[in-house]
Amino acid sequence: MRTDVCERFGTEFPLFAFSHCRDVVAAVTNAGGLGVLGAVAHTPDRLEEELRWIDDHVGGRPYGVDVLVPARIDESAERAARGDGGLDTMLAAVPREHWDFLAGLFDRYGVPLPDFDAARRAGARGGTQVTTRGATELIDVALTHPIALIAGALGTPPPLMVERAKAAGVPVAALVGTVEHARRQVAAGADLIVAQGGEAGGHTGEISTMVLVPEVVDAVAPLPVLAAGGIATGRQMAAALALGASGVWCGSVWLTTEEAETSPAVKAKMLAATSRDTVRSRSRTGKPARQLRSAWTDAWDAPDGPGPLGMPLQMIIAEGAMRQITKVAESGNEGARELANYFVGQCVGLMNTVRPARQVVYDMVAEFAEAVERLDRITATD
Amino acid sequence: MRTDVCERFGTEFPLFAFSHCRDVVAAVTNAGGLGVLGAVAHTPDRLEEELRWIDDHVGGRPYGVDVLVPARIDESAERAARGDGGLDTMLAAVPREHWDFLAGLFDRYGVPLPDFDAARRAGARGGTQVTTRGATELIDVALTHPIALIAGALGTPPPLMVERAKAAGVPVAALVGTVEHARRQVAAGADLIVAQGGEAGGHTGEISTMVLVPEVVDAVAPLPVLAAGGIATGRQMAAALALGASGVWCGSVWLTTEEAETSPAVKAKMLAATSRDTVRSRSRTGKPARQLRSAWTDAWDAPDGPGPLGMPLQMIIAEGAMRQITKVAESGNEGARELANYFVGQCVGLMNTVRPARQVVYDMVAEFAEAVERLDRITATD
Repeated sequence: MRTDVCERFGTEFPLFAFSHCRDVVAAVTNAGGLGVLGAVAHTPDRLEEELRWIDDHVGGRPYGVDVLVPARIDESAERAARGDGGLDTMLAAVPREHWDFLAGLFDRYGVPLPDFDAARRAGARGGTQVTTRGATELIDVALTHPIALIAGALGTPPPLMVERAKAAGVPVAALVGTVEHARRQVAAGADLIVAQGGEAGGHTGEISTMVLVPEVVDAVAPLPVLAAGGIATGRQMAAALALGASGVWCGSVWLTTEEAETSPAVKAKMLAATSRDTVRSRSRTGKPARQLRSAWTDAWDAPDGPGPLGMPLQMIIAEGAMRQITKVAESGNEGARELANYFVGQCVGLMNTVRPARQVVYDMVAEFAEAVERLDRITATD
Repeated sequence: MRTDVCERFGTEFPLFAFSHCRDVVAAVTNAGGLGVLGAVAHTPDRLEEELRWIDDHVGGRPYGVDVLVPARIDESAERAARGDGGLDTMLAAVPREHWDFLAGLFDRYGVPLPDFDAARRAGARGGTQVTTRGATELIDVALTHPIALIAGALGTPPPLMVERAKAAGVPVAALVGTVEHARRQVAAGADLIVAQGGEAGGHTGEISTMVLVPEVVDAVAPLPVLAAGGIATGRQMAAALALGASGVWCGSVWLTTEEAETSPAVKAKMLAATSRDTVRSRSRTGKPARQLRSAWTDAWDAPDGPGPLGMPLQMIIAEGAMRQITKVAESGNEGARELANYFVGQCVGLMNTVRPARQVVYDMVAEFAEAVERLDRITATD
């Protein structure tokens, strides 16, 4: 299986794996794909540690890093990150009503409130990374490692970032949800476009993979396009390539692997979930993101509540809260289990067993081959 | 290109075309696919006329009929259709508030009100067909013709219908939007499942084609599955077959063909539309249906309005109104053009030129072959 991206990146298969877990990244890379480490809430020191570990475990095989770069930064967050007030200014920007709603939700589900100040700060720390300066710091750390790719989601990467990557000779991938966005990313210097359909986990648009991929392929040709959104199996990989993509970018399917650090309570929910059990909700980050539907999303999306804030303020509320919910869910607290969730795409319905990440790769490649053989039989001249 | 459905139905290509226009149905069938006439608002007499015309124009080649059968019939509509009150009872079931909202909308957009009583009756007539008795009458007409297939959308066909089709030796196809629904349809006697992703035009669910097709294929095997939703090109047809489908079912792509009776104003909107210009709205039929976003959908979906009624009552409001809007739009009334819309999928963004329906078939088949060749090159051993 060789496409132009295999040639360019030195992989055996055109299979890119997005994961926050270094073990998954290394496992996929070692199995012949290209693992991409998601660095959103990492501090620069933590990212350095993770990338050093990956370097030690992939024997020179290619891997990448993904940094979340929002196009529209909350102005108070920007100001806060620049000023000495920092975290406190951001915290003050969260309305009392929303803190109270959160406390009421915890109370209703019997989840002990965490040390809210510490949790707020932990949430706020993640929030400050979602500023331009925070993202730039992470880019600089990443570029000191032999990464094969740097990716950015949510908006056109600032020119400074694209320039740094290009100066280092590292290709830039951009995730897009519309063909208009794809054109802007190419104009901004992207080398590789990931066309992500609305069925994907995390921050997505509304155009489906089946429709988005061909129109992006046509719009950015001859730049290579990876298809993302709903892809967890070899048949879907074959479908993506049939649409004109040069490879696939998968996120959800790794969440139920052995190596994934997904909390056991959430992993169990995912294994049990059907493709109907996800929602596009603003309740975790302030921007629409597909995730498991849960009591958390139901509460924040209810028309009679205060509703989620924007990014990164909603992230400040959610990150600390989710850390507590996840922890408490592990000890068997039923209310916490009802609240617990994580980002995942509609393909969660196809994710029904726990496998090592390398097995996911091998299964996809084998099923891909079967799908192509079936197409050949269909088109064989009578 | 031969799959099991080609064998079964006697077509050259596994390409099923859903259209309300007999010319499209005949053209696709004559080009080697299988045209399916959508019979929702037809009276039994009109359907008889249409099918006789198709019989005269396809030289024995296979075609089918699709009847809309809702699972949950509005009780007052059922009672109304059974009783002498009929239309008047249904009309009385539409709240005054909704008639007034409609009148206000027409006024705001400078569209002359039609003869509302005649329009209400025209809308109500369509509404009565959406009762069990109405659908049964259409089935009986269809079964007197040499149809190759009968299809039902929106809910499990009542046993009486499946029995009639089976007694006539006509396979029954069922459109589904979830794997659970697919299993129910098979249990109810469906012979062929059309797995329709949320990106499709008309009444759809929320699971994308890329995710839905493989899970339905697995769930109903060895029954054949047609993929629907977003498919307008040969690459997408190849993708659908890669997912395990035995063929494709296309609706949207015929709306901008030469033969299509789509109103010119709406056809022009579709040609200009991008994949972002559709919404899933209840404003035309009472059930969520994907259609071009327009001033009509915006008004009915606005949170501060009365909101759409259920089916078939919203259909009573919308059908007469849309008939007037469409007519007036053709004379250049700008407000009417803003309101005008029709059902279409996200692939409307890929529909940019007017072609004869047979050319659409040939273009899809040619592009399908190219896509498979590309996959073969990708998998050729190095």
